[in-house]
Amino acid sequence: MIDHNRIRNAAFRAKVTTAEEAAYYIRPGSMVGMSGFTGSGYPKAVPQALAAIMEAEKAKGNSFRIRLFTGASTGPELDGALAKADGIAFRMPYNSDATLRGRINKGETEYLDMHLSHVAPMVWQGFFGEMDTAVIEAVAIREDGTIVPSSSVGNNKTWLESARQVIIEVNSWQDAALEGMHDIWYGAALPPERQPIPLLRPDDRIGQATLRVDPSKVVAVVETHAPDRNAPFTPPDASAKAIAGHLMEFFRHEVARGRLPQSLLPLQSGVGNVANAVMSGLEEGPFEDLTAFTEVIQDGMLGMLESGKMRVASATAFSLSPEAAESLNARMAEFRSKIILRPQDISNHPELIRRLGCIAMNGLIESDIYGNVNSTQIMGSRIQNGIGGSGDFARNAYISVFMTPSTAKGGKISAIVPMASHVDHITQDSQVLVTEQGLADLRGLSPKQRAEVIIKNCAHPDYRPGLQDYFKRAKEGSYGLQSPHLLTESLSWHQRFIETGSMLPT
Amino acid sequence: MIDHNRIRNAAFRAKVTTAEEAAYYIRPGSMVGMSGFTGSGYPKAVPQALAAIMEAEKAKGNSFRIRLFTGASTGPELDGALAKADGIAFRMPYNSDATLRGRINKGETEYLDMHLSHVAPMVWQGFFGEMDTAVIEAVAIREDGTIVPSSSVGNNKTWLESARQVIIEVNSWQDAALEGMHDIWYGAALPPERQPIPLLRPDDRIGQATLRVDPSKVVAVVETHAPDRNAPFTPPDASAKAIAGHLMEFFRHEVARGRLPQSLLPLQSGVGNVANAVMSGLEEGPFEDLTAFTEVIQDGMLGMLESGKMRVASATAFSLSPEAAESLNARMAEFRSKIILRPQDISNHPELIRRLGCIAMNGLIESDIYGNVNSTQIMGSRIQNGIGGSGDFARNAYISVFMTPSTAKGGKISAIVPMASHVDHITQDSQVLVTEQGLADLRGLSPKQRAEVIIKNCAHPDYRPGLQDYFKRAKEGSYGLQSPHLLTESLSWHQRFIETGSMLPT
Repeated sequence: MIDHNRIRNAAFRAKVTTAEEAAYYIRPGSMVGMSGFTGSGYPKAVPQALAAIMEAEKAKGNSFRIRLFTGASTGPELDGALAKADGIAFRMPYNSDATLRGRINKGETEYLDMHLSHVAPMVWQGFFGEMDTAVIEAVAIREDGTIVPSSSVGNNKTWLESARQVIIEVNSWQDAALEGMHDIWYGAALPPERQPIPLLRPDDRIGQATLRVDPSKVVAVVETHAPDRNAPFTPPDASAKAIAGHLMEFFRHEVARGRLPQSLLPLQSGVGNVANAVMSGLEEGPFEDLTAFTEVIQDGMLGMLESGKMRVASATAFSLSPEAAESLNARMAEFRSKIILRPQDISNHPELIRRLGCIAMNGLIESDIYGNVNSTQIMGSRIQNGIGGSGDFARNAYISVFMTPSTAKGGKISAIVPMASHVDHITQDSQVLVTEQGLADLRGLSPKQRAEVIIKNCAHPDYRPGLQDYFKRAKEGSYGLQSPHLLTESLSWHQRFIETGSMLPT
Repeated sequence: MIDHNRIRNAAFRAKVTTAEEAAYYIRPGSMVGMSGFTGSGYPKAVPQALAAIMEAEKAKGNSFRIRLFTGASTGPELDGALAKADGIAFRMPYNSDATLRGRINKGETEYLDMHLSHVAPMVWQGFFGEMDTAVIEAVAIREDGTIVPSSSVGNNKTWLESARQVIIEVNSWQDAALEGMHDIWYGAALPPERQPIPLLRPDDRIGQATLRVDPSKVVAVVETHAPDRNAPFTPPDASAKAIAGHLMEFFRHEVARGRLPQSLLPLQSGVGNVANAVMSGLEEGPFEDLTAFTEVIQDGMLGMLESGKMRVASATAFSLSPEAAESLNARMAEFRSKIILRPQDISNHPELIRRLGCIAMNGLIESDIYGNVNSTQIMGSRIQNGIGGSGDFARNAYISVFMTPSTAKGGKISAIVPMASHVDHITQDSQVLVTEQGLADLRGLSPKQRAEVIIKNCAHPDYRPGLQDYFKRAKEGSYGLQSPHLLTESLSWHQRFIETGSMLPT
């Protein structure tokens, strides 16, 4: 199945070896940068071979753990395999693998959950020290020795520049027609030498199609033929459709008021069934000539690009269901003029998000009555995934939307709580809150005004009276009345869940 | 004392009237945009005349309240006088006046505490509706009918553009040599028409020296001669000097490691005695050719500009002690090539802060053991001032520093607490934490690693054992171990303070 014609440079061809041989270049305790962003474009063979070495060392009583940096989440062959082998001492900047999540929440792996736009600049800054090894999946290696990136770009440019040694996995499962879809900008610098980023529209190409690498650093090339293993498509349920409906009504209202153009503004959207419902709503809605400036291209965007509803989508990665990925692979060339994949320090750059005026649409775990949003830590301490790019987009968006079903765990958790048990997005950055119950437009409101509309429009009826009661008593008994709270009970709903398995009063 | 030669345009001269007459243009319930940023450049006569009208109406049993927008904080003649008359129904985006703070914390005035860079774009977006009246302090009105801004620029450009009617106070106390010091960029637009901001260095001038106004909107011009009433200089005490000392050592270390240039990077700093100590430390330190890209120019920066230690300071306002203001006024022309005052949507623009790589140095009320920072709300509910520009700078800085004495209220409040009672700056945005006890470099650390170093380096010895004990038990009993917490006691220190007046165990 492997297509051996993907390596079009003789010097690189001479470095082809097995994943097992390549994995031996990675040493215990070292700092390793791998490709991968939302289950796309991550290396598949070398990490599994490395996990086998780790397991073998463990059997001999030796610890073999690395510090692992990526773009964002990866797949079971990477985070899953290494976590199973207890091979990750430190992980950044994002994870969504269940096995690794378990290790983190048991305190076995240290996890630094970072703004995705901050990662590359902080590495350039030299703060993390020298990166030992980069392991990067590619679609091909060109005659000129440059690397055709895979289905994600992520931090690959930075890892290739920073690492002392480089391993490349050339994956011929990825469609060869991905070549030409990427836009790698080599104008980034450290201050005081930084220049404006010359991007004015999501469509703009400002760089080159391939990644540079110093050939002398490349110690191994491994050929693979393995699919990205992304999450399956989750069809919108009634709740997700209701959320999307409220949001479409909001967009229509904003367009009617002249506050948004008819083609809206560049969209940023996450993944999952609520995001899928929103894409579906947009597909059927009255807005034309849409664009996306976002992190990931998911199934729904692909559909809109195909139908012509969306003109162009700029991202750093695909995040497609297995079916959509297969389907895209079969017709990649058709999409080449409509999709641009960029490094994540560009896809998530505050300068560009603010300039383009993105409409940010992100999920959440919980929001308090004032609109402080927790996106990461269940009951204030247990990590779910991470902040990812939500902070890059929410603070700089033209309109920052957060959306969620009003309850979770079969109604036992309220997504609207008296006080957030952890805060990722402060009230200043959450401007529109949507649940299946309704939409709260929080722009221009003081905290107490926000609480009125959040409880009324967004809370589930099972929890609304409890929130109203808390807010009323807080206004009577709080230390100050800017954002009233009763500290003896502000986190009691969370504690009740921990103790009884439900936030509902017993 | 009034210099009648400041109004150099006949049409504007014909509109000169008294503050009392001008104030009658402002109607109950209206939305009013006034100039003013940190006690500089705010109108002094019209607000007091308005307050008198409000008081008179109140005596007749009538309510007269407005929605008040400014740049940031103002002076007693504005926020103080209007709050005393209970004339402010809604206030944004920042306040530091004690009388108004009291009204807010009693629930009598609604207060929207915004990122200062967000204000103007949100007004352009049309979300707040039409502004009725702008009241703007100026240094002069030129022959061509443009306005020479005063000692702050703030949101004046936006208010002059947006308001239905305009009142100008020409204050001849402000030195005439301020003319030419401002840089007003008229290239801002709404998306999708936004362009890169062509500013590459703090020194760059990208706009014009004066503000435009449609003369037909100007309903009154009022002549005044009154000083800005800013806070007095607070000399650094031992604690502030210790904080500055730790920070200077950190800068030396970063320069030695090659992670900062010898001239550092553009500085952002707040006001108060800790900021004064840092300026003093820089004045005496080894770094040369410094620059500032910041909100306000305070006494210490003026000193560095004078000595040549600092080459240029870009800000949106002065925030000078009365003595420094008098002294500056006497020698304004000397500083004209070294100081640039810009609109606050430019001084605080994320695009520019990220590009220039600012070193952000902000104060705080409390940080929790993980570095979540509360800058605004005492005991989680009582507003102090507001987030101001700290969020604009902290998230986009090259290095984001937060600094504070380790205790407040004579030792009865710990600045390091188990859990922050309110969050303005998430852990991702607080990279270096400094108290008089020491400095915690949090870059690259997971939450639990951060907690170790914050407790060890920054907490006061009176509170350190309690924090260590909490953290230890949280690691044993927390729901998850990403950022361990015990929700039944995470806010108990705050509750103890509310009940007993001290966070110390009884």
